[in-house]
Amino acid sequence: MTATSLLTLLTDFGWNDTYVGVMKGVIAQINPHVQVIDLTHEVPPQNIQVAQFNLLSAYPFFPVGTVHVAVVDPGVGSARRAIALELETGFLVGPDNGIFTGLLAQQSVIHSVELTNRDYWRVPDPSHTFHGRDIFAPVAAHLASGVPITKLGDPIDVVNLAQCPIASCTPTAHGFRGNIQHIDRFGNVITNIPGEYVDGKTWSVLVGKRTVPGCSTYSDVSPGEPLALVGSHGWVELAISGGDAHFQLRLNWEDVVQVVIGQG
Amino acid sequence: MTATSLLTLLTDFGWNDTYVGVMKGVIAQINPHVQVIDLTHEVPPQNIQVAQFNLLSAYPFFPVGTVHVAVVDPGVGSARRAIALELETGFLVGPDNGIFTGLLAQQSVIHSVELTNRDYWRVPDPSHTFHGRDIFAPVAAHLASGVPITKLGDPIDVVNLAQCPIASCTPTAHGFRGNIQHIDRFGNVITNIPGEYVDGKTWSVLVGKRTVPGCSTYSDVSPGEPLALVGSHGWVELAISGGDAHFQLRLNWEDVVQVVIGQG
Amino acid sequence: MTATSLLTLLTDFGWNDTYVGVMKGVIAQINPHVQVIDLTHEVPPQNIQVAQFNLLSAYPFFPVGTVHVAVVDPGVGSARRAIALELETGFLVGPDNGIFTGLLAQQSVIHSVELTNRDYWRVPDPSHTFHGRDIFAPVAAHLASGVPITKLGDPIDVVNLAQCPIASCTPTAHGFRGNIQHIDRFGNVITNIPGEYVDGKTWSVLVGKRTVPGCSTYSDVSPGEPLALVGSHGWVELAISGGDAHFQLRLNWEDVVQVVIGQG
Repeated sequence: MTATSLLTLLTDFGWNDTYVGVMKGVIAQINPHVQVIDLTHEVPPQNIQVAQFNLLSAYPFFPVGTVHVAVVDPGVGSARRAIALELETGFLVGPDNGIFTGLLAQQSVIHSVELTNRDYWRVPDPSHTFHGRDIFAPVAAHLASGVPITKLGDPIDVVNLAQCPIASCTPTAHGFRGNIQHIDRFGNVITNIPGEYVDGKTWSVLVGKRTVPGCSTYSDVSPGEPLALVGSHGWVELAISGGDAHFQLRLNWEDVVQVVIGQG
Repeated sequence: MTATSLLTLLTDFGWNDTYVGVMKGVIAQINPHVQVIDLTHEVPPQNIQVAQFNLLSAYPFFPVGTVHVAVVDPGVGSARRAIALELETGFLVGPDNGIFTGLLAQQSVIHSVELTNRDYWRVPDPSHTFHGRDIFAPVAAHLASGVPITKLGDPIDVVNLAQCPIASCTPTAHGFRGNIQHIDRFGNVITNIPGEYVDGKTWSVLVGKRTVPGCSTYSDVSPGEPLALVGSHGWVELAISGGDAHFQLRLNWEDVVQVVIGQG
Repeated sequence: MTATSLLTLLTDFGWNDTYVGVMKGVIAQINPHVQVIDLTHEVPPQNIQVAQFNLLSAYPFFPVGTVHVAVVDPGVGSARRAIALELETGFLVGPDNGIFTGLLAQQSVIHSVELTNRDYWRVPDPSHTFHGRDIFAPVAAHLASGVPITKLGDPIDVVNLAQCPIASCTPTAHGFRGNIQHIDRFGNVITNIPGEYVDGKTWSVLVGKRTVPGCSTYSDVSPGEPLALVGSHGWVELAISGGDAHFQLRLNWEDVVQVVIGQG
């Protein structure tokens, strides 16, 4: 895999402060030709679960060799490791706290290192509170500039990487039981039930006391009506045509969602 | 007109999810040298009215040949068409739902096509819910890379394009009657009365039971005082010097605004 | 100092409107090769205090020659001057209203000019309400393209620049007394007491009736416990490990903060 000069940023830093801008300044100091794309900086503070879902969702749509930096880092300054991973089609840089869990369940790792080589940090003695600026951004800028990942530190064993606990989707007598893994800006509720489980079948979703029909697109039901469909992420999603399913169906993050096959 | 490699994005996707980032990834996969500028992604969900105002306001300030992608798309997955338009000074790409209405009232169209050529889509069989990723972003990236618009699909007649209903500004005995078409972050209230109607005249604005003087700039009145002026968008605008006119004047989107000429 | 083609933007324009996008369009019209980085656009409307802190914090992390544009401009359209400054390591462009105060306390000025040369404005007769678009963005784009600052207008004396009143940090019998100068997205409370004052010492912070221990990093205390540390900005900061100090310690912007040396 050849390194490109494209880099993405995913953090919980928000846009109110200059933390994201500062990371981009540090990257530009190392290589002003690296192109930076923001995935999102509005991950709820310190929420690794949401961060790993967002990264998993966005990863497939970037060019081969893109360097993805993910910094949601409640353990900054503690003993948690800083890591970089080389996958078949891209690189990951961030804390070893489970933020890559969903992606690593789908992708195999070619190289994995702990970021111990201070030559590629911004300063040898970094801040205790902002490794995004002092370690992750500069290391990623070097990776995107063609530095081999093996130079960034000592090899580590991927089986020892921290894991983010992810609720699993399990089979039932008539279909599958799963959970909510994301609620988007429109109030669409994304479950952890893979779309391929309902592909080509007649199906419906049971959530709370309500049954929602499995459809192909929003306009399959009248405006204001609830529906389930396979969303653009590839997961079974609950939506309201022209509305907000999260709000109008009174769904909560903890709710159990059941797909029932053969019942449209 | 020569195609440049500059592209803008206007959506209602917000910054919480990775939808915008994913569109940029798709663009970079097609042409990593296309420069992407965000107009706004905070259009209220599915609000075509606000979207078309924002596009209208921003369009004149971009280089000739810029490709503008606008995706506020409540009809995604339905029979609504996906279109691209070539104007004298730029390109438009988005759903045929009225999102270009304001702009097309000011600009003439050189070419208009329905996006039927799947060679320029991301995949021949796109998602039913995210045409921004699967159709509009890739088509726009190809346009910005120099693909002629006529290759993107079948020609269509502009008279059949969907229209967004826009309140009109009408003459009265003493001036003009209009509506509110935008309220910005500062609480400035932008009407649909063109600034040229008051240019060089003595004028005031009547809104509710209040009369507000027509001025040139915020500092023409004392801090905290209301005023009307021709805003940077070119429309008559209500403001409060150092304050928030929307909040402090208790204005609503539905309010009628009257310009009275000859009464300062 | 050689001009680069890197430019940053700091405003109170928010992301809901297209004001920021329009500034980028104007820059691209002048030089499409200028790279633009957003510092933040979420400065509270017209709050020069927050703006100057944000600029001060971000400035050191950008390449030599970067042009920083700061537009928080309650006096737009009044007699306040528009200025550009050349420092040892970068350029500043914005209104003369104190927005550069913190930075100028740390940096010396090589050239300072009032932006009187309309050849470098977008139009000779600019809007009364949006100098970001009509004066600051185009002037900055020309600076980033190599136009010498001395061509942009008449030299001015830096001693006459407007000042933003900044609370000072003063010595006490046992340490230092200061104020809050920023509260970030995580609820970390950044004081105006320089980190070097506590470097290598045993120290604590007294705020309200509470004493908080001086630490090195968040994980020095148990999750949920308050601590003080030298933050990534270089200032003494109050935080809660895994929490929100602003909210949980019930701190206000006006609160006095005291560092007590020799008492851990």
